[in-house]
Amino acid sequence: MPSKELVERLLGEVRRMPIIDCHTHLRWNHAGADDVSDIFGYHYIMAELLSAGMPHEKLLGAQTGRERIRNALPYLPRISNTATWWGFEEICRRLFGLKGAFGEATWEDVFATSERRCREPGWHREVIEETLNVRRTMLTNNYDEDLTGYDRSMFAPALRIDPLVLACDRPETVASVQKATGMEVRSLSDFKKAVGSVFHRFRHDFGARSSAISLPPDFSAFPVHEGDAAQIFDRALAGRRVTDDEFRRLRSHLFYAYTAFCQDNGLVFQLMLGVDRLVYLNAAPSGGDAFSTDPSMLRTLRDLLNRYPGVTFDLCILNRVQMHELAAMGKIFPNCVVSGHWWYTFYPGAIREALRERLEMIPVVKLNGLFSDSYYCEWTVAKVAVYTRALAECLAEKVEQAYFSEDRALWVARRLLYENPVEHFGLQADEQLART
Amino acid sequence: MPSKELVERLLGEVRRMPIIDCHTHLRWNHAGADDVSDIFGYHYIMAELLSAGMPHEKLLGAQTGRERIRNALPYLPRISNTATWWGFEEICRRLFGLKGAFGEATWEDVFATSERRCREPGWHREVIEETLNVRRTMLTNNYDEDLTGYDRSMFAPALRIDPLVLACDRPETVASVQKATGMEVRSLSDFKKAVGSVFHRFRHDFGARSSAISLPPDFSAFPVHEGDAAQIFDRALAGRRVTDDEFRRLRSHLFYAYTAFCQDNGLVFQLMLGVDRLVYLNAAPSGGDAFSTDPSMLRTLRDLLNRYPGVTFDLCILNRVQMHELAAMGKIFPNCVVSGHWWYTFYPGAIREALRERLEMIPVVKLNGLFSDSYYCEWTVAKVAVYTRALAECLAEKVEQAYFSEDRALWVARRLLYENPVEHFGLQADEQLART
Amino acid sequence: MPSKELVERLLGEVRRMPIIDCHTHLRWNHAGADDVSDIFGYHYIMAELLSAGMPHEKLLGAQTGRERIRNALPYLPRISNTATWWGFEEICRRLFGLKGAFGEATWEDVFATSERRCREPGWHREVIEETLNVRRTMLTNNYDEDLTGYDRSMFAPALRIDPLVLACDRPETVASVQKATGMEVRSLSDFKKAVGSVFHRFRHDFGARSSAISLPPDFSAFPVHEGDAAQIFDRALAGRRVTDDEFRRLRSHLFYAYTAFCQDNGLVFQLMLGVDRLVYLNAAPSGGDAFSTDPSMLRTLRDLLNRYPGVTFDLCILNRVQMHELAAMGKIFPNCVVSGHWWYTFYPGAIREALRERLEMIPVVKLNGLFSDSYYCEWTVAKVAVYTRALAECLAEKVEQAYFSEDRALWVARRLLYENPVEHFGLQADEQLART
Ligand SMILES: [Zn+2]
Ligand SMILES: [Zn+2]
Ligand SMILES: [Zn+2]
Repeated sequence: MPSKELVERLLGEVRRMPIIDCHTHLRWNHAGADDVSDIFGYHYIMAELLSAGMPHEKLLGAQTGRERIRNALPYLPRISNTATWWGFEEICRRLFGLKGAFGEATWEDVFATSERRCREPGWHREVIEETLNVRRTMLTNNYDEDLTGYDRSMFAPALRIDPLVLACDRPETVASVQKATGMEVRSLSDFKKAVGSVFHRFRHDFGARSSAISLPPDFSAFPVHEGDAAQIFDRALAGRRVTDDEFRRLRSHLFYAYTAFCQDNGLVFQLMLGVDRLVYLNAAPSGGDAFSTDPSMLRTLRDLLNRYPGVTFDLCILNRVQMHELAAMGKIFPNCVVSGHWWYTFYPGAIREALRERLEMIPVVKLNGLFSDSYYCEWTVAKVAVYTRALAECLAEKVEQAYFSEDRALWVARRLLYENPVEHFGLQADEQLART
Repeated sequence: MPSKELVERLLGEVRRMPIIDCHTHLRWNHAGADDVSDIFGYHYIMAELLSAGMPHEKLLGAQTGRERIRNALPYLPRISNTATWWGFEEICRRLFGLKGAFGEATWEDVFATSERRCREPGWHREVIEETLNVRRTMLTNNYDEDLTGYDRSMFAPALRIDPLVLACDRPETVASVQKATGMEVRSLSDFKKAVGSVFHRFRHDFGARSSAISLPPDFSAFPVHEGDAAQIFDRALAGRRVTDDEFRRLRSHLFYAYTAFCQDNGLVFQLMLGVDRLVYLNAAPSGGDAFSTDPSMLRTLRDLLNRYPGVTFDLCILNRVQMHELAAMGKIFPNCVVSGHWWYTFYPGAIREALRERLEMIPVVKLNGLFSDSYYCEWTVAKVAVYTRALAECLAEKVEQAYFSEDRALWVARRLLYENPVEHFGLQADEQLART
Repeated sequence: MPSKELVERLLGEVRRMPIIDCHTHLRWNHAGADDVSDIFGYHYIMAELLSAGMPHEKLLGAQTGRERIRNALPYLPRISNTATWWGFEEICRRLFGLKGAFGEATWEDVFATSERRCREPGWHREVIEETLNVRRTMLTNNYDEDLTGYDRSMFAPALRIDPLVLACDRPETVASVQKATGMEVRSLSDFKKAVGSVFHRFRHDFGARSSAISLPPDFSAFPVHEGDAAQIFDRALAGRRVTDDEFRRLRSHLFYAYTAFCQDNGLVFQLMLGVDRLVYLNAAPSGGDAFSTDPSMLRTLRDLLNRYPGVTFDLCILNRVQMHELAAMGKIFPNCVVSGHWWYTFYPGAIREALRERLEMIPVVKLNGLFSDSYYCEWTVAKVAVYTRALAECLAEKVEQAYFSEDRALWVARRLLYENPVEHFGLQADEQLART
């Protein structure tokens, strides 16, 4: 419904705003790609090419980035409709001078330009700060990572804890926690102490802002007594059999315990809900993951949110089905904020649907905007382009319906892109460091 | 897609049409607010303010309406994006002369105007009839209410029976039914007789048009033998333990029995599906309710609808997920009509999505439009504004797609807003009483 | 959002494109209606009329087509809003000279015209080829059908196998397979051999392109050992009791076995997911079917898709809920293509939502467009009209958002309507036969 002119005018304003990127996998010590083949190698694109009929060995067996792209050329038209492919071409246009379609006639120039530009000193800073006006980028960091020396004016770590919950019964998890902390683990209590020290280090030594975990659709969260969990842990540690139900109890106990660590350390707990791993087996890495919907995926978190009013939970979800239920949670729980649009929901139509609903239902201060999930900073260019357009379209719709004035619309945009994440992740203190 | 001009033209026509409001909680003897603080106190707004960070005691501990609003002033921008807040400001604009935003600079004038206007004699009639052209408002009435003397040209009662199903195992329910009916209850048969007399009184003494119940997502409906239910009821009455499964059987038996009472008394059975109570525990009253989705929430009603072809079931649902399934039921069951947009689905985007789908799938005569759920008649102003805009947008879309002529579009609107509820709730007979 | 002008321009182009119709119930030896009452008798319309209050006996008890229409006249306005009714009138406008609404004043002329035209020699060819530019129409054929002599330039058979899975435990199924094949069935192995010969005959004698089955929402697919299934089959054949779980195992075993037959014979396996039969009991034939959503309806197919990479699975689904999950499957599984918009999802809004999502997420070469599900070729006129408009609207949106150029948009349309189904169903070889 909104007129093209209004959308473009709002978009122009939105694209000048400062941004916080609430979730990425950027490497803090090497945030950019080496050349366009890294960008091309994004698992979204790999999955689409295989799906569109490109033979597995031609794509994944390629020895070099150049060879991979060259092999893919005949298959590119077959994915030329997807939002991912549009994003890839947009990166090439914005950063590497692409004119027209990426293909036979153009790819070598793009490759050459990318090789040159990506290796310029300060390239990632140019992309992140100059091109995108992203003021802070959240990272994803393993518990055994050493973050000494990362640029605090640019990045903020997030302590990723998936294996500490989902593989808590495996001896190798315990071993690696021991190694990372130098603490001996002979019991559940030891394990929690060691993990607690990781949380403390991330917060106090590394300036982490959040802990993050991706949970499968059927994850169930419920309070489990310490003593019960301790016995199960002992059994797992001793290599004895743990039943499915025991494993569920142990996981949930630890999940609650880590929530308490978030509380103790003032960390936001970022929950990414709904992924099923390795759905398609013969896939490129990460390219075979998908999702399904368990009707209790959100319901199971209610008790936790009620018990930890002091922890800010930042939720995102991998399906469109439960968007509405999530919006209701964001509306009623003061400690529940809602983030971005993740993976299979990061598509223009799904973003617009979610944003429209959230802007209608949830206090605007509870919404975080950009959630790029980028592995290379160049991909953030595409994500920002798609997200800001969807945002401008939603806002324009509200303006035309007379629900928002244009001023309110732009204020909302600024809240989503910048002020809310600053508020939720406690980035104010560091703001002096950042460019203003 | 529809042009703004077409939307506004249709909206102008739609807003002149007579309306039936199919569900409210208005008090028949005092339908309006005392002043704007009653309107401000709507649980939608209370929930949003708490969620947006307003401290619980500042909001809910305020001693007066004035104090509550004054305390809330700094938090208002934080919810200024929501459809609820737009509705509140719209009420203040339409009824109390608000210009600009409701806040520091304006609230006292609005308050003063509201105090004056709300106490004018005939104020609620002015709002309902003059401002809104609402010709009949359905109420929500407890089984022990005395409705003698309500204005039949304005209201139509609905017998609300939630505790008679959902708390049928509690001695206090039995006691209160005894008290309300003066009939002794020593068995299930007595209980049903007593409840049957309530249905009869509501229909024949009070002119009720429907019975209504709100059911949780996991409610299951299935035929249960009288003898089985009677034994369970005896056990409950004697204070003995009733298992979950027995309780489920007793509830379902009574649910079927009340359906038969609807049939005997010519009442529509209004089913409001999907609420979960007290999801967020530290909430304002009703502000902590939310919903989840049980895949069998609609499926479970199929047997009932097949067994009682003579009862009109008027369904609404609290999630967007099962809208489509509900539309299919409305399409195929002659005795299933579909009502409005309830609570978490009463948002512009959700209304538009549901309306578009229903107008495509369901014979128009099966659709009831406005379902304001208002507690004060002033809120109906906001609900009508949001609903009619969404309706006009949907109709405009159909007109631009050449699926509807403008005439058909307006005829559809009139059907939804007025003629269908008149037909379904049997309001024709009383029409002489109503203004035309 | 897209401008009306752009939609109409794209629509003009789209409506000139050649089309493959991926699923119908046309009779190859008599593809058209006898007169407009056949077209009127479509179960979508029967269901709507009953639902809108037309008495059962007036509609279904009518002795002639004329009487049925005459009886229905007073009820037509009550369904005049639905997409189905628009489709019916569109057929009458396009093929039988209807001006204005179909009703009292016009129906007899339409009837007379339809009687004349439908009996003209080559009428179905005129509709399918001249009016619609449909180059190939997939059929639905029972395993005991003799297709000798059908027009291979116009049609392509699909072997429908519902009873061979869903009623595999019934003696009459076995008996009818014996009769159809002339092969004796005394064991599961015999049964599979017989069914295998049907697959072979369909592919090699009749030129079938696919096998098709409609599965209920709770169907579960998982590998079942031959020996286990054989014992269950023996028990069923002997008329002994088979438990629900055994029946589930037998069904699944056969479902996997038939997938292997698809592989052996180079047939696409068309899975239509989610119908519940006879939801409303007092319905017109097929008019009481609806759907519900089982959260594992798609998940259950993952193993099968992984095990048979050589089979192209063509999926469609009867609810909007799992559209997104289906899109993710279409995105990652090379052997999963996604078809059309089936039954309760064949409505303008649902088509647009699904198309938008699929065009963003799935490589375009994985998408089949038209899936008319027609019983008479005249209905294809309505289905094409609705589908192509929704397609043009989606494409126009993408063009206005600058995600697609107009050229790419039209290329996408041609892919969906024609080139993809030609590719998936292997129609190239026969293309010489078809008009170009
Ligand atoms: Zn991530
Ligand atoms: Zn209510
Ligand atoms: Zn079919």
